[in-house]
Amino acid sequence: MGRGSNLTRLGDFNQTVVFDAIRRTPGGISRIELVAETGLTAQTVSNIVRRLLAQELIVESGRVQSAVRGKPRTLLRAKPSARFALGVHVDPATLTYVLIDIEGRVRQYARRRTLETRRPEQVVAAIADQVTQLVTAAGIEPATVLGLGVAAPGPLDAVEGVLLQPPQLAGWEKVRLRADLHAATGLHVLVDKDVIAAATGERWAQHGARHHYVFCYLGSGVGAGVVMDDVVLRGASNNIGEIGNILVDPGAEDLGVGQPGTLAAACLPRALVVRAARRGLITGTVSLDDFVAVDEVFTTLCERAYAGEAACLQLIDEAASALAAGLAVLVNALDVDRVVLGGPIWSRISSRILAVLPELIQPQLVAARQPLVVEGSAVGEHVAAQGAAALVLDHFLSPRPSVLLMD
Amino acid sequence: MGRGSNLTRLGDFNQTVVFDAIRRTPGGISRIELVAETGLTAQTVSNIVRRLLAQELIVESGRVQSAVRGKPRTLLRAKPSARFALGVHVDPATLTYVLIDIEGRVRQYARRRTLETRRPEQVVAAIADQVTQLVTAAGIEPATVLGLGVAAPGPLDAVEGVLLQPPQLAGWEKVRLRADLHAATGLHVLVDKDVIAAATGERWAQHGARHHYVFCYLGSGVGAGVVMDDVVLRGASNNIGEIGNILVDPGAEDLGVGQPGTLAAACLPRALVVRAARRGLITGTVSLDDFVAVDEVFTTLCERAYAGEAACLQLIDEAASALAAGLAVLVNALDVDRVVLGGPIWSRISSRILAVLPELIQPQLVAARQPLVVEGSAVGEHVAAQGAAALVLDHFLSPRPSVLLMD
Repeated sequence: MGRGSNLTRLGDFNQTVVFDAIRRTPGGISRIELVAETGLTAQTVSNIVRRLLAQELIVESGRVQSAVRGKPRTLLRAKPSARFALGVHVDPATLTYVLIDIEGRVRQYARRRTLETRRPEQVVAAIADQVTQLVTAAGIEPATVLGLGVAAPGPLDAVEGVLLQPPQLAGWEKVRLRADLHAATGLHVLVDKDVIAAATGERWAQHGARHHYVFCYLGSGVGAGVVMDDVVLRGASNNIGEIGNILVDPGAEDLGVGQPGTLAAACLPRALVVRAARRGLITGTVSLDDFVAVDEVFTTLCERAYAGEAACLQLIDEAASALAAGLAVLVNALDVDRVVLGGPIWSRISSRILAVLPELIQPQLVAARQPLVVEGSAVGEHVAAQGAAALVLDHFLSPRPSVLLMD
Repeated sequence: MGRGSNLTRLGDFNQTVVFDAIRRTPGGISRIELVAETGLTAQTVSNIVRRLLAQELIVESGRVQSAVRGKPRTLLRAKPSARFALGVHVDPATLTYVLIDIEGRVRQYARRRTLETRRPEQVVAAIADQVTQLVTAAGIEPATVLGLGVAAPGPLDAVEGVLLQPPQLAGWEKVRLRADLHAATGLHVLVDKDVIAAATGERWAQHGARHHYVFCYLGSGVGAGVVMDDVVLRGASNNIGEIGNILVDPGAEDLGVGQPGTLAAACLPRALVVRAARRGLITGTVSLDDFVAVDEVFTTLCERAYAGEAACLQLIDEAASALAAGLAVLVNALDVDRVVLGGPIWSRISSRILAVLPELIQPQLVAARQPLVVEGSAVGEHVAAQGAAALVLDHFLSPRPSVLLMD
């Protein structure tokens, strides 16, 4: 049911709307553009801008001559050093960190192998240590850091910040990641599902348009974030995006890595490594539960594929076929006009997948649609970490705050 | 990007919010409840209510004693005869009509076989004739009818009101249904996809809560409406919900009604009729392109199943297995906590499907979710017609108008 707006609430709300518009326009925006963007009157925008300048949340940064006539317009920008947010993406094989400023720009970046033992308390300690290093390296006031966003594999309880039983993290049962990280760092912490964080990171990079897309997340697991009408969907329990069980290849052999013929059993590093072993492409043994080891063999296979080894390229092409079938199900069901791919393994397979995927999907789409756009993430492999940090900024700075943050 | 609210716009917007809250509460709502519901001040609500009374859009209807103390509260209701909307659902086998009042109550109802020839101009003439009869039978002023909503099979261009090439309506190519019906009736007309209209009709009946559900539409085709956070999703081209191609049964025999093993080829009347014929359950021939004939044979098979004929019940159970596999894909991908089933064939199979479906779906869901609710539509077989009419009311009376209506 719709809610009206009282005059008392309206002031704060409108200030948030104006600030949000400014910080999402890194090149700067003039007062007159803010009027067009927000639908507020020139007088209201002018008053709010004065308050934001006084609070040192924004700065005036240069002037541009209007194309037609009149006096030059002063550009307003968020003051980049006013506030910061940290993000970490917990993948079974890799921990990715970012420190972003108020405009979403990455100020610090780090990438570490997830500890081989993967015991939760060690990972928490490693994260706490690393984020402290990032803040120090950036040379910023700790008080300007709004909080830490954590992107993690599902299923999880985002409201309580608890990982339930992520199938990829053996022994991580009901880990209270938010409370533990809050205790270890003193920061506000939110925990959100990797695909939701990734879709959020992507939306930040592609803001402004009326987007409908599926963000296909490829890491140690496969998942889908969904953006509809420029809104990142979450689902009833904040666990949207479990697509690994979609049946894509009825005749598939049993690889021992999940239900045969499903998307997860056909396109993930574990599946490709098992296929490679059965075809004699690799020797020696790899423990399939050791995500770091699997990731390293997978990397080698990708390198050999791009070096021209046909049998290795075939592995990637098989993954592309599986992805095409799974993504066609989602595109048909959700009527999105764009598929964006990204995640921890994306850069290793992206050029081949992008070369073959569009033609594999198109024949499987219900007729009479717009051509489907298939593209790689505009953000890169840190998209989920970036999105987790962006969720922290959104919580504090957006008209629609998240409810997931620990105070 | 968020938009602020100017004071000038605020008045109209808030009036719409208040009226929307009143009309969606058929039992009546007091001013104090409106304050709680809308977030507006008591003074603002009081002023708006005075205007709505003067415009004869609402009436005072009785008083209730407050539970605790104080004077009795006057209940406000939308004036049921203030405005009406018509809805028609075009299914290849059946045309379903409703006339609803401002509170969404069905005042007139009609159900007709779709003309066997199914030529668009005959269907348009039949609809124009029938809606005139409904208005006359209701004894209402034609000027109080806000418009006609049409629910139709996709793919369609809802913005232009044009059916593209619905696979179930042979020869209906680029039919300008909105323009033709506008010319034939003089009414404002909107055309929307059947699954979107059905999800909208269901949401009207289940309003108020924060719902996440898939509406599984079963008619001559199968489709899915999606409600997230109480919003009916539409997709990039207003064609959400094409789920017929989801692979549900890899080993399925080829029935000659679509790709073997897909949901559409496993759960629709045509598929059940072919299966029945192959198993010798029916004699004679049925043209599979004659949706009315198929529908009649299907009805007989259902009646025999409920009369105790095991081989006919088996047909319904096979459809339930297919539905379970297809719906599990959607529930996992979208993280909904509810599946609602409905549509033109629903009442003929509902009791058996509801008896077996929940236990068939549950094992296919990703762990750690809330229990999934599986239920039949609260509205009944006219849910899509009701939803199409509700979309007309929403266009004229809601804070978020549709853009699909022809003026």
